Amino acid sequence: MELLNKLQWRYATKAMDPQRAVPTDKVERIIEAARLAPTSSGLQPFEILVVTNPALRARIKPVSWDQAQVTDGSHLLVFAAWDDYTPERINGMFDYTNEVRGFKNEGWEAYRQQLLATYPPRGPEVNFQHAARQAYIGLGAAVIAAAFEEVDCVPMEGFDPAAVDEILDLRARGLRSVVMLPLGYRKAEQDWLVNLPKVRRPREQFVTDVA
Amino acid sequence: MELLNKLQWRYATKAMDPQRAVPTDKVERIIEAARLAPTSSGLQPFEILVVTNPALRARIKPVSWDQAQVTDGSHLLVFAAWDDYTPERINGMFDYTNEVRGFKNEGWEAYRQQLLATYPPRGPEVNFQHAARQAYIGLGAAVIAAAFEEVDCVPMEGFDPAAVDEILDLRARGLRSVVMLPLGYRKAEQDWLVNLPKVRRPREQFVTDVA
Repeated sequence: MELLNKLQWRYATKAMDPQRAVPTDKVERIIEAARLAPTSSGLQPFEILVVTNPALRARIKPVSWDQAQVTDGSHLLVFAAWDDYTPERINGMFDYTNEVRGFKNEGWEAYRQQLLATYPPRGPEVNFQHAARQAYIGLGAAVIAAAFEEVDCVPMEGFDPAAVDEILDLRARGLRSVVMLPLGYRKAEQDWLVNLPKVRRPREQFVTDVA
Repeated sequence: MELLNKLQWRYATKAMDPQRAVPTDKVERIIEAARLAPTSSGLQPFEILVVTNPALRARIKPVSWDQAQVTDGSHLLVFAAWDDYTPERINGMFDYTNEVRGFKNEGWEAYRQQLLATYPPRGPEVNFQHAARQAYIGLGAAVIAAAFEEVDCVPMEGFDPAAVDEILDLRARGLRSVVMLPLGYRKAEQDWLVNLPKVRRPREQFVTDVA
C-alpha cells in the first residue's frame, strides 16, 4: 500500500534547510487533511495556526528547547485545542451541521442535548484533555499528508505551552497549544537521524489478537 | 491529492454488514499504519488489541452504548495506552532502539536520562494522558489506512473504559483502553449517515495565518 511506503519514508526531521520554502499549495493540502480528519462527535475542537512570521518564530524557538526546525522550516503549524467545551461551542457546531445538511434531525438534536448536559459540567480540564486528543488525530493526518507531498516535518511536543500560548495570544481565544509541526525540507548532510533505521516495536509486541 | 479523496470518502459508519468480513491482509495493513505512526520520543506508548472473538465483542457491546458496529463489524481494534511511563518501559524502548541501530549514541543516552528523570515523577495520570494522545496519532493513521483499503470504520469513544479494561484484562498488563475502531463494510441502506454531506468548519474558522 502506498500509504505504508509514505510512512516508511517520513521521519522526524532534525535539520531543515532554511533556504527552501514549502510551496503554499502543498501547505494548504496538508492543512486540508487535518481539517478533514475525524473528531469526536464531529466537534473539531481545535484550530491550526500557520506561523510564517519570522519574528514570532524567533520568539517561539527559545521556549521550544531551541529546536532549529522552528525557524529553519518555512511554516510552523501550531495545533491549539479548545480550552473547554462550552454550550456556545457545542451549539455552534450542531447549528452549523444543521445548516450544511439543510434539515434538523430528531436523533441529532437529542444527541446535542446529551452533550450539552454532560460536557460542560465535566469542567475545563477534562474537556481540554479530550479536545487535545482530537487534535492528535489531525496531527496524524497532517504528518501523513506531508509525506504524500514529499514535505518533511517533525511533530514537536518539546515546548512550553504557556509561553507559546502567550506569544500567539491563544488563551484570549479560548485555545491552548498542544503540539507543533514545523514543515520544511530536510538538510540531509546535517541531520543525524536521516540515515538511521526507523525503530518500531515488532508486531508481536504491539498487537494482541483476541480471537 | 489522493489522500484528500480518501478522507472525503470515509465517514463514521453507523451500520455495518455482519455478513462481510474484512480480509486479513487489509486488517494487517491498517494495523501496520498505526504501528508506523510517529509517537512522542518514539516510545509507542500504546498497544492495539484486535478483537474478533464473538463472545467478547458481545460483552463489549452493552458497555458501548449498544453500538451495533462492535459486533456487526468483523474486527474491533481497541487502542490501549500505557497506564504510566515507568523506567522499565522507557529503558525498554531505548535499549531496543540501540539494538536496532547497532550502536549507542551519546546524545540519545542523554535523552534517555532526561526522560527517566522527568517522566516517572510526573505520576501515572499525567503520563497516561500523554500516552493516550499518542494513541490518537495511531488512530488517525489507522482510519486513513482503512480508507485506502476501502474498508469502513468508525472511531468510537462512547464506551465505558473501565468495563472494557476488565473484559479484556488490560489493567493487569498496565494498559487502559482509550478509543476503539470497529472495522467492517457499510450496510448503506440502513445507515442514516452514509448519504449526508461531510460537515467541517470552513478553513477560515479552522486556520489562522500568522504571517
